[in-house]
Amino acid sequence: MAAYSGTSRPPWQKKDRTRTDAYRDAIFMHTDAIRDKVVVDVGCGTGILSIFCAFAGARKVYAIDASDIAVQAQEVVKANGLSEIITVILGRVEEVDIHEQVDVIVSEWMGYMLLYESMLPSVICARDRWLKPGGLILPSHATLYMAPITNAERYADSIDFWRNVYGIDMSAMLPLAKQCAFEEPCVESITAENVLSWPVVIKHIDCSKVTIQELEVVTTNFCVSSMMMASLHGFAMWFDVTFGGQNSQEFESAGESPQDSPPASDYESMALNLRRRRGNETLVLSTAPEENPTHWQQTILYIYDPIEVTQDQVITGSITLAQTRENPRFLNIHLEYSSGDRRCVKESVMR
Amino acid sequence: MAAYSGTSRPPWQKKDRTRTDAYRDAIFMHTDAIRDKVVVDVGCGTGILSIFCAFAGARKVYAIDASDIAVQAQEVVKANGLSEIITVILGRVEEVDIHEQVDVIVSEWMGYMLLYESMLPSVICARDRWLKPGGLILPSHATLYMAPITNAERYADSIDFWRNVYGIDMSAMLPLAKQCAFEEPCVESITAENVLSWPVVIKHIDCSKVTIQELEVVTTNFCVSSMMMASLHGFAMWFDVTFGGQNSQEFESAGESPQDSPPASDYESMALNLRRRRGNETLVLSTAPEENPTHWQQTILYIYDPIEVTQDQVITGSITLAQTRENPRFLNIHLEYSSGDRRCVKESVMR
Repeated sequence: MAAYSGTSRPPWQKKDRTRTDAYRDAIFMHTDAIRDKVVVDVGCGTGILSIFCAFAGARKVYAIDASDIAVQAQEVVKANGLSEIITVILGRVEEVDIHEQVDVIVSEWMGYMLLYESMLPSVICARDRWLKPGGLILPSHATLYMAPITNAERYADSIDFWRNVYGIDMSAMLPLAKQCAFEEPCVESITAENVLSWPVVIKHIDCSKVTIQELEVVTTNFCVSSMMMASLHGFAMWFDVTFGGQNSQEFESAGESPQDSPPASDYESMALNLRRRRGNETLVLSTAPEENPTHWQQTILYIYDPIEVTQDQVITGSITLAQTRENPRFLNIHLEYSSGDRRCVKESVMR
Repeated sequence: MAAYSGTSRPPWQKKDRTRTDAYRDAIFMHTDAIRDKVVVDVGCGTGILSIFCAFAGARKVYAIDASDIAVQAQEVVKANGLSEIITVILGRVEEVDIHEQVDVIVSEWMGYMLLYESMLPSVICARDRWLKPGGLILPSHATLYMAPITNAERYADSIDFWRNVYGIDMSAMLPLAKQCAFEEPCVESITAENVLSWPVVIKHIDCSKVTIQELEVVTTNFCVSSMMMASLHGFAMWFDVTFGGQNSQEFESAGESPQDSPPASDYESMALNLRRRRGNETLVLSTAPEENPTHWQQTILYIYDPIEVTQDQVITGSITLAQTRENPRFLNIHLEYSSGDRRCVKESVMR
């Protein structure tokens, strides 16, 4: 299809001020850890994060990218007089060699809903190959969230529309319309008003410890209660990443047993803790509905038939994200949810 | 990629009020030609045009679609009590049989820039197989236009951005940025303010006469003069279709020798004629920048390096649209343009 403005651009073309601001601030906030040290930038793109690291006083930066963008990054580095500090390497982190250990890894690896087409496996590889014990990884932690949402406008526009088109009863279109509009996950922007409950943590990642194996299948149970009377139209996912800080502990004690289903109140207090963390010194880049929009927006799984929920009504279920065997680019999503007397399963594929 | 709201939906899901209004008005304007007659709807989708024809008094409507949407169309027809009048046929126009001649063909066949993934070949096939001599085709005529445009905002956002990113000289990115942003045609909305001259007619189509062969390669020379001092950033294409009327004559006398290059003034008067036609009784569905937006928007070929033009400066060139041999879904676009002392060629593919 032709190039539509605003979609399908290469990642380095996504001019996302919120994202770049967060990385710049994070790098300058860690000047003490970067000054006179060796940094590797995994998936450097245009080289902008490497340049921020050079400005923050790095002795040496290895900027690695597997795509031809590395050629331009090399030119950018040269044009800014940083060739002595930044070495651009065209190749895969898994295959290239750098002949020293590094103090810092910086990378903008996050995909849609954090894990879709993410470069986290390359960061893990770089960490295991080159990072000194106790070295810094920016971002240091990532968390994927989910919450039930209501979105009457979107639903009306896509589905209810067909009930009456120019006075013609087109409700025979509804099943196909639902399938076409909502079969795949939607990358869209919603606002805090759409969100029905405190978010559930689907996965918390400590970048210093996470393994490639534990990313293959991510699963969690959830139990939340609706904050209002509304139509439940689907579930939204978003993420945040934090730069530095040693605050992964609270997750490990509170939330890492996704197979049991604790009461809603437990999950809520965990979500509240998360929100309070943002008031601390730790820098957070959040793609939540209540924050500044980013190119990641939110990823939404719409359900075919809305469920009417009352205030405090409990919504339970489980979600599993799994890399597909046939195409590692795809992500299988298995969602089970129930509320009141309704119990449903939705399978979808992010491709 | 995941389903983004607003793109990549099946055609029947494009809820384009301007388009559906035009077809509804055109069908009811031709009630005299439709009442008690036999109609074929080529690529019927949801069946809405067939239903309009039934409302306009058609004795029989054959609604043909090669996709499974025909199953839903059948249900819609039934739900509206029109099964006696409308027969839905799942299959290709080229392969199915209807056992009588028809009085009217109705079809919404137009693709992006009119000819990209258009269903016009199926309309031609239906015409040659089934239409009675002198029968009505809705729309009856189609015209593809082109004009030079200026779009500083879009250019600045995609290209000039790289000159200075957070104080970093990223102009080494410019060649790649231009290639990524502007290599393929862009489907975007512009306004009349972006357009630098009266439009050139690339191709006029009389649906009662056009052949499949003459659509394989469409080519025209152009010579226009800029109405203002501006940066020429590219060329926009759009189209209109007319419903009924016998006004193709003026094209056949004035514009069907695209190989010679008449002076700019000739082309301009032709464009003015076209505009005046809209004041007549003929119904026009236009996708021009100055009209209500449609899902077709405009298709824009951006050029890599803007040309500064003064008022009345002449811009000449030629454009050729050709179906590719390897994949008939693709459209090769060969654009040559010159103004002042600048002369350029741009090859692109709409895929």
